[in-house]
Amino acid sequence: MKRSPKFGIVSRRDKEEAIKLAYKVYDFLKVSGYDVVVDCETYDRSRSHPFDERDRVPLEEFDVDFIIAIGGDGTILRIEHKTKREIPILSINMGSLGFLTEVEPHETFFALSKLLDGDYFIDERIKLRTYLNGENTVPDALNEDAILTGIPGKIVHLKYYVDDGLADDIRADGLIVATPTGSTGYAMSAGGPFVDPRIDALVIAPLAPIRLNSRPMIVPAFSKILVRNETCKRKLILAIDGQFYTTLDPSTEIEIVKSPRRTKFVRFSKEFYPKYPIKLKERF
Amino acid sequence: MKRSPKFGIVSRRDKEEAIKLAYKVYDFLKVSGYDVVVDCETYDRSRSHPFDERDRVPLEEFDVDFIIAIGGDGTILRIEHKTKREIPILSINMGSLGFLTEVEPHETFFALSKLLDGDYFIDERIKLRTYLNGENTVPDALNEDAILTGIPGKIVHLKYYVDDGLADDIRADGLIVATPTGSTGYAMSAGGPFVDPRIDALVIAPLAPIRLNSRPMIVPAFSKILVRNETCKRKLILAIDGQFYTTLDPSTEIEIVKSPRRTKFVRFSKEFYPKYPIKLKERF
Amino acid sequence: MKRSPKFGIVSRRDKEEAIKLAYKVYDFLKVSGYDVVVDCETYDRSRSHPFDERDRVPLEEFDVDFIIAIGGDGTILRIEHKTKREIPILSINMGSLGFLTEVEPHETFFALSKLLDGDYFIDERIKLRTYLNGENTVPDALNEDAILTGIPGKIVHLKYYVDDGLADDIRADGLIVATPTGSTGYAMSAGGPFVDPRIDALVIAPLAPIRLNSRPMIVPAFSKILVRNETCKRKLILAIDGQFYTTLDPSTEIEIVKSPRRTKFVRFSKEFYPKYPIKLKERF
Amino acid sequence: MKRSPKFGIVSRRDKEEAIKLAYKVYDFLKVSGYDVVVDCETYDRSRSHPFDERDRVPLEEFDVDFIIAIGGDGTILRIEHKTKREIPILSINMGSLGFLTEVEPHETFFALSKLLDGDYFIDERIKLRTYLNGENTVPDALNEDAILTGIPGKIVHLKYYVDDGLADDIRADGLIVATPTGSTGYAMSAGGPFVDPRIDALVIAPLAPIRLNSRPMIVPAFSKILVRNETCKRKLILAIDGQFYTTLDPSTEIEIVKSPRRTKFVRFSKEFYPKYPIKLKERF
Repeated sequence: MKRSPKFGIVSRRDKEEAIKLAYKVYDFLKVSGYDVVVDCETYDRSRSHPFDERDRVPLEEFDVDFIIAIGGDGTILRIEHKTKREIPILSINMGSLGFLTEVEPHETFFALSKLLDGDYFIDERIKLRTYLNGENTVPDALNEDAILTGIPGKIVHLKYYVDDGLADDIRADGLIVATPTGSTGYAMSAGGPFVDPRIDALVIAPLAPIRLNSRPMIVPAFSKILVRNETCKRKLILAIDGQFYTTLDPSTEIEIVKSPRRTKFVRFSKEFYPKYPIKLKERF
Repeated sequence: MKRSPKFGIVSRRDKEEAIKLAYKVYDFLKVSGYDVVVDCETYDRSRSHPFDERDRVPLEEFDVDFIIAIGGDGTILRIEHKTKREIPILSINMGSLGFLTEVEPHETFFALSKLLDGDYFIDERIKLRTYLNGENTVPDALNEDAILTGIPGKIVHLKYYVDDGLADDIRADGLIVATPTGSTGYAMSAGGPFVDPRIDALVIAPLAPIRLNSRPMIVPAFSKILVRNETCKRKLILAIDGQFYTTLDPSTEIEIVKSPRRTKFVRFSKEFYPKYPIKLKERF
Repeated sequence: MKRSPKFGIVSRRDKEEAIKLAYKVYDFLKVSGYDVVVDCETYDRSRSHPFDERDRVPLEEFDVDFIIAIGGDGTILRIEHKTKREIPILSINMGSLGFLTEVEPHETFFALSKLLDGDYFIDERIKLRTYLNGENTVPDALNEDAILTGIPGKIVHLKYYVDDGLADDIRADGLIVATPTGSTGYAMSAGGPFVDPRIDALVIAPLAPIRLNSRPMIVPAFSKILVRNETCKRKLILAIDGQFYTTLDPSTEIEIVKSPRRTKFVRFSKEFYPKYPIKLKERF
Repeated sequence: MKRSPKFGIVSRRDKEEAIKLAYKVYDFLKVSGYDVVVDCETYDRSRSHPFDERDRVPLEEFDVDFIIAIGGDGTILRIEHKTKREIPILSINMGSLGFLTEVEPHETFFALSKLLDGDYFIDERIKLRTYLNGENTVPDALNEDAILTGIPGKIVHLKYYVDDGLADDIRADGLIVATPTGSTGYAMSAGGPFVDPRIDALVIAPLAPIRLNSRPMIVPAFSKILVRNETCKRKLILAIDGQFYTTLDPSTEIEIVKSPRRTKFVRFSKEFYPKYPIKLKERF
């Protein structure tokens, strides 16, 4: 007999309404007889809702079959940066953008029923793995690695290589390397195109380059992208998904490849158009 | 015993120097004992060079193992639009752009030797097949289909669908659907990115759209792209690779998919970077 | 004693509602004792509304103090292209864009009262005058001169000079020269900026240029702009305000200067921000 | 009798060749009987060239008729940020860009002769004055004010007003407000146009905005531009001409107007085209 799935619950931390809905989901799943854990930060912000303290587990230690995320893209990125395994995420939109989220709050219990019935599919998205001087000490990116000048307004001189061949040599505010998922984010503000997530490719987009013929590029996801800082004294900032920040010494070599890890979303429809383009229009 | 390869020779028609080199290549191959044919248009422009009249064959009837193309991207596109089979092309640059060409004139005989020695590889490029109201009556595109307003300066209202889902609804001068090979051409002038030809994807780029949030898109090459003209009385022009032009009735449905046919180039190096980006810089 | 102002009425021709409102305005002004004429095209489309036939006058012969325009930007451009004098226009928005219009239909009679009370000011906009081989045979442009390839999809090679100095040399679909009023139109689709109409300057914007470092330029309105077609056999199309079209022989020299004529709009507020930017957002 | 002009000499500090030329200019002018001063930083870097110590004067105290600047745009910006009066600058190009410089090193003495003969004219360029919470405590900008997120990669929410009307509301990396002189710098990397310096206007260009319909704007130079930070906790960085940096508290109101001070360049030709566009092409 197939064992019953375990659930983890994560809510955005700054919205009472989201935590309230998180509790309702928790309660529904517990009453239905499932094992449920709730992440510590969600638990701690929930003063008035009676999650059972024994179900309080740090996100880093989640060992569940599905995560129910209540929030926006930020909540999903937090889950991705902290969990250790590729746990499928069902995301309920309580954010403002909601590019990655699947269902609206009023659809929550209808969506949970479909999930429990097995009436869903998994949408896998590629991520970026980053090596700094050969070592992977930073989180994987679901959206993008932004390699930025350490001093706002002072341009950096960067060279970037695709599979060891020089791809471009720029003086710019920085360089964005994005997944298809991230193509509608920072990379698009830098002039990049929308990339259908079914394509196994990456966007490389210079940020406010001095030379106008430095264009965004789309390269195979199996490429090795190497970025070198040619500005001998200027530190760089590496911003991953707008969530994780680190300062890099000028001599740091940044290598970006496709991660062995993927992000898995629970989806109820394989239709991509016109849903995604409509979200794009609403955003811009 | 393996039979000896047959060659076809095609030169650009408006450059004496190119026809001269074409003859030298012809002569070298004939003297070396190979079967060689020369396309009628090249033959006819060659007043002073003694191609054998028996080797004069229309490009449409070329049945050879390799085509030696002497010219620029235009010559390659002419070959692609006229030949019936996927014949590998060794391209010698006598054009101004030379994005697709492989060797410079002074390398011609060195390149021919490598080809005869089997020291080469084939670089296959995808093409677009176009159906007008369900029928394929136009050539495949190596670079792009440009779907343009029939009256310059009068915008058209187009809707385009990816795999039957609405992708965008634009009022613009037109729409470009390009292969990775064509990404550095018209699509780039329309704001599209450079797409590495190893990626199996297409660029869809609106041309001077009124709405600024209509962005270029990168979609899987296996997608079916459907374009509908919503301007009831405005005819469209379909320009394929800047070579083939046709006028379309307003109600024509344009369907674009990946062609079963590919273009095959003889290459001597698998290195793509920095060669390609450098050509890009020289161009712009 | 100051004589009483004369009015002319022009409506868009394809909207029953606009012609209905035109009649109401006509009736109100007649009843109030003013001289009113109605343009022939408006009169002729008005089957059911009893304009007096003696007030039917061709737009070209309007000799009035104010024109009441009921329609959108197209109606204003039609008036501008046909009237011979600079007659102030009060524009009532019955169009979809309404960049140039001042009042909404429900404000019509309130606006007329303010106009009759002298409680308004005149917003003057510069126009472009175009000389073809030294002769001005085409209408002035309120928005832009679009100098376009005669064959959609075939680029033209243009050189343009500002005050006799070479400003750029482009291979493109065409070139837009726009007034500040036209900066939000075709010029913006070509990548140009919004230009505040209080600035006495022109936008020059290449349309889908091959070279990416060909940027839009802002030049003084007192400049002489000269455009030469370097493509020896390619005809050009000159489109003025998207209303007037003419084909130009390849050797035609196009000279564009500020017109001595201006367009005068009746306005009730000098505020420009945020009204204009909001219209911009709604459009795009 | 007209008194003889006094000269000040300023060289870039990091190039031996520039300091050598500075000494030659100094010597030539001294020998010719003119009063000459040399700025302290130039003097101090000149170990082997015998400037007279009595002529060593801080740039801030220069009280001369002309400054001879030997260097690139950076040297000019340093002069502009430090001198107290509007002293005409003759600029000799020893930089890499040299947008603002007038003569090449080999033309130095020919240019000095023309200057001494009075055979020159003055090209005046507008500058920006910046008020932070109503006080002007920062230098004027010859190129631009860049108002940037204090944390690279974290967008800021800014509202900007032109003459008290809301012009736009952006989430972006920052906002550039540039003079025509600065239009070819940071503002152009942000998507702005080239603005002819004869136009009395400013460029406002958002830097990598999320919304794609936030476009560069050209506003009259007599406008008052007000920028408010709507991100309650995010500090901003104000970078003036890439030379002067300051951190701003989130609540700081930034007001930018045309400065009463101008930059004066000694020029020998009034021709602007094609000189300037050519420099632009070389740069990009």
